[in-house]
Amino acid sequence: MNIVSAASGMIDKGNHRHFMMKEIHEQPAVVGQTLGTMIDPIQGHVTLPDMPFDLAKVDRVTIIACGTSYYAGQVAKYWLEQMARINVEVDVASEFRYREAVMPEGGLAVFISQSGETADTLAALRYAKSQGQHILSILNVPQSSMERESDVVLHTHAGPEVGVASTKAFTCQLSVLACLSIAIAKARGKIDDKEEARLCIALTEAPARMADVLNHEEAIKTLADDVAKARDVIYLARGLEYPIAMEGALKLKEISYIHAEGYAAGEMKHGPIALIDEDVPIIVIAPSGRLYEKTVSNMQEVIARKGQVIFITDEKGAASDGQDAVATIALPMLDEFVTPILYSIPVQLLAYYVAVAKGTDVDQPRNLAKSVTVE
Amino acid sequence: MNIVSAASGMIDKGNHRHFMMKEIHEQPAVVGQTLGTMIDPIQGHVTLPDMPFDLAKVDRVTIIACGTSYYAGQVAKYWLEQMARINVEVDVASEFRYREAVMPEGGLAVFISQSGETADTLAALRYAKSQGQHILSILNVPQSSMERESDVVLHTHAGPEVGVASTKAFTCQLSVLACLSIAIAKARGKIDDKEEARLCIALTEAPARMADVLNHEEAIKTLADDVAKARDVIYLARGLEYPIAMEGALKLKEISYIHAEGYAAGEMKHGPIALIDEDVPIIVIAPSGRLYEKTVSNMQEVIARKGQVIFITDEKGAASDGQDAVATIALPMLDEFVTPILYSIPVQLLAYYVAVAKGTDVDQPRNLAKSVTVE
Repeated sequence: MNIVSAASGMIDKGNHRHFMMKEIHEQPAVVGQTLGTMIDPIQGHVTLPDMPFDLAKVDRVTIIACGTSYYAGQVAKYWLEQMARINVEVDVASEFRYREAVMPEGGLAVFISQSGETADTLAALRYAKSQGQHILSILNVPQSSMERESDVVLHTHAGPEVGVASTKAFTCQLSVLACLSIAIAKARGKIDDKEEARLCIALTEAPARMADVLNHEEAIKTLADDVAKARDVIYLARGLEYPIAMEGALKLKEISYIHAEGYAAGEMKHGPIALIDEDVPIIVIAPSGRLYEKTVSNMQEVIARKGQVIFITDEKGAASDGQDAVATIALPMLDEFVTPILYSIPVQLLAYYVAVAKGTDVDQPRNLAKSVTVE
Repeated sequence: MNIVSAASGMIDKGNHRHFMMKEIHEQPAVVGQTLGTMIDPIQGHVTLPDMPFDLAKVDRVTIIACGTSYYAGQVAKYWLEQMARINVEVDVASEFRYREAVMPEGGLAVFISQSGETADTLAALRYAKSQGQHILSILNVPQSSMERESDVVLHTHAGPEVGVASTKAFTCQLSVLACLSIAIAKARGKIDDKEEARLCIALTEAPARMADVLNHEEAIKTLADDVAKARDVIYLARGLEYPIAMEGALKLKEISYIHAEGYAAGEMKHGPIALIDEDVPIIVIAPSGRLYEKTVSNMQEVIARKGQVIFITDEKGAASDGQDAVATIALPMLDEFVTPILYSIPVQLLAYYVAVAKGTDVDQPRNLAKSVTVE
């Protein structure tokens, strides 16, 4: 049932050396396309497909996924709680399906899967259905098992993803989840038309800003040789960027085989900071905004322990901090709400160039399959 | 406000080389003492201090902590959901306090801290209070800031903990959380007197079984030299043991400076399995029971990729699997519900002996403080 692999013979890499790089570069286009199916840029509002249930009456959301899709779900938890003021639980499918989760009837259960065939996620979907949940799936490959068993499907329009390490499917999942969060917030009366329009406009700026970042990828490429020498890399962030830290670490693990780990920046002092010495690169992700100062303060603690920091921030952040970092990457300014989509790009590029520097098989990393259709 | 350190001059290590080892060995006694304050072994029921609110009316639990205490909270989520059929959210304090969490009035908010002074946890407590939550704290050091601001406190009776890496405070936290879970399940009518008595009896067996494990610590000591050579170690488990995998990894990070990471066993195929080669020890924690077969199947996948597995199971598990593991540690049989308390011991011992083999400063690891009283 591995539909993407079956079709991949027909897809070429264009001018890129690897499918992964081609797919990274497709993101401005496919994120734009995905947003275009849900956002009306003139009216500034989100239109979702007809739902066989009333979004306004949903009072609890459970999001289930595996791997990269799980991190997309974690970003959505922050979005939904802040915007829609609703309780959200996120879990990995392999844990969720066996823990007999309590799901009060009428809740919304969201399943995220590139392939729509992920075995644990499908089993979790069936459990949620048996508990009287409304089933909404966010899927990339059409006509999957999960599509057939869902009440409603929101499609990511990422196109076939061949690289085993997910990139464009992830940012398209984030785009769909951002729209879903706006729609739920609106249905619950937590945001008004004006705020909806503001959020929609912010979202539609993402593709252009992503393209800006991709046009300056040399800055990241030059860092890759040093990171490639590391045995361990730590990614730190707070809030909306915390799942991006975990996703960045997962990307590096998957394709470069470097043991990378993403941490909530505020948790470092509770143990992991013991790992830090001059051999450990630390990727700090901190756009300017509400959590900027707190994250920078954690960065300073790490630098004081001789950690080699790569500081990923925006133009405003780069102007005020990062003098002690080994390198600072300044992304374009963008509304805080949209930053997880934009900040996915530098961590993808870093993982890619590190893997190329190490000479690993970028598109087919060892031990991994594109879709995990067994438990 | 670091009360434990202030008092530590008066506490000696007894016959042990390090406070951490002394504290590991104190666990049967202090867990027994802690359980003794809450469990009536004759009647087989749990008695908690008078609560200024009705446990039966609580319909949502939020558990907030940092570091090791956070993993105790994660175990409690599994316990509470299964036994008390109640929704539980667990978060690290540094994330929780800034994400404007949705907390419907009348919910129970549980804060776990050894010192009662952890800055982020205290800030989170104040936020929860402002949201109309009932505040219950699980604390070790008496008369702390958190004690003064809580509606009710459940004390762990671990005694002063001097080693920076928490051991006995953790298993005492688990003991208190197990009793709280039983009490909430009973108050909500989800378990009857007979089931309560069964769970109480199972819990009171923990100290003796912990002592059994400590009497056979040589088996773990002999593994330490090999693990000490590793740069990376992965801990895998499912369900109730998944937080113990993360806690085991944290212990190893803290005192041996080896980059260890705990993973839900079912998530390995979604990326991290790419890390596995013959240089990576994998600690698999799988007591026999409901999730045993699934975890063993993940262990086989790792062994097929040449991972060096240390299999921590019970006598029944050791009799049926583990032939391909580098080593199998067979713990005494114990009710599944109590396994997180028992399985904490081998991961503590392993971290300790690896740190000793590496010659690190076990009681005062680099970069770490016992209580994190700054943000």
